[in-house]
Amino acid sequence: MLSDMKLRDFLEKLSSKEPAPGGGSASALAGATAASLGCMVANLTIGKKKYQDVEEEIKKIKEKLEEYRNKFLIEMEEDAKAFNKVIDALKLPKDTEEQKKVRKEKIQEATKEATLVPLKISKDALDVMELAESIAEKGYKMALSDAVIAVILAKDAVLGGIYNVKINLPNIKDQEFVDNIKSAIEKMESEANAIELRTLYNTHL
Amino acid sequence: MLSDMKLRDFLEKLSSKEPAPGGGSASALAGATAASLGCMVANLTIGKKKYQDVEEEIKKIKEKLEEYRNKFLIEMEEDAKAFNKVIDALKLPKDTEEQKKVRKEKIQEATKEATLVPLKISKDALDVMELAESIAEKGYKMALSDAVIAVILAKDAVLGGIYNVKINLPNIKDQEFVDNIKSAIEKMESEANAIELRTLYNTHL
Repeated sequence: MLSDMKLRDFLEKLSSKEPAPGGGSASALAGATAASLGCMVANLTIGKKKYQDVEEEIKKIKEKLEEYRNKFLIEMEEDAKAFNKVIDALKLPKDTEEQKKVRKEKIQEATKEATLVPLKISKDALDVMELAESIAEKGYKMALSDAVIAVILAKDAVLGGIYNVKINLPNIKDQEFVDNIKSAIEKMESEANAIELRTLYNTHL
Repeated sequence: MLSDMKLRDFLEKLSSKEPAPGGGSASALAGATAASLGCMVANLTIGKKKYQDVEEEIKKIKEKLEEYRNKFLIEMEEDAKAFNKVIDALKLPKDTEEQKKVRKEKIQEATKEATLVPLKISKDALDVMELAESIAEKGYKMALSDAVIAVILAKDAVLGGIYNVKINLPNIKDQEFVDNIKSAIEKMESEANAIELRTLYNTHL
């Protein structure tokens, strides 16, 4: 699995001319890093007397962030696999009419999946933005910059996922699928912008 | 070294209540990921007939991005070390006047270093933004979303570095040092915003 690779080796693999892992996996990594930073600030908050009132809430947020961190590691992998499935479909034979039809269907199927994985990355990253925003607001003040960095890194994962969705959409023929996804990503993009602006406005860093 | 850790282990370490590695190292990782994605798009561009005219330029950009990727891995480490030096200085004895004086000096010294490392991360990330912008503009169009994700991830590294600088500045007594850094980060922040906006405007993703 990609997450079992050494950091430096993963980055070399990312740098290579193999198109997967690519931007989707990089976005998932940004999401995982954001969730981890949020966890750190939660861990620095838990057990401090001054933050006793929010301790239970912070503990719950921390548990969720740990779940998201692990989800992103799986999505890093899924994104690379989904991309490779598109490549495999493109390589199918197209000599007969029947082969052409099968190939077209497989390409459509694989492209949809390669769109749904980054969409999931964006959705999860939007959740992490909200959780990290709460941590920035209520958590240990000495680590405020870490919580803010978690918010903006998670926003990157939202946007990164969205760009990877957008680059696939023109290749999908199912118009209803495309329309649904378009409205979903528009909503997510504006929510992500709102959370980022609110966090930066409220934290005065 | 942090970069020799497995990805999943690094993220667990980042999640722990140890304050280092923290936001600075996370920002350096975002920078390294951005540089790697830029390299990938460069590698996908090099050798393609349609991009022959820009091949030499892309090769040079790729070499620079590889250098930055390696620099960020070192900065990930340096940031964690610089933070731990501040902690060590805070733990120095303060029983006598002489000890108090020495402790104060050591804290100032360590805090300045803990400010200069994330400043370096921001500067390097700004360079990577520019390089990734060129790749988005001139590189392989099928990987445009990857180049754009590289730009926004690098912008995160710029901002992340800046926030880590900002959280240290109130603790530094040397006003000239503080003023110089303040004007440097203001300039970097507006440059980073400009590059991001320009990239998003020009790429129509």
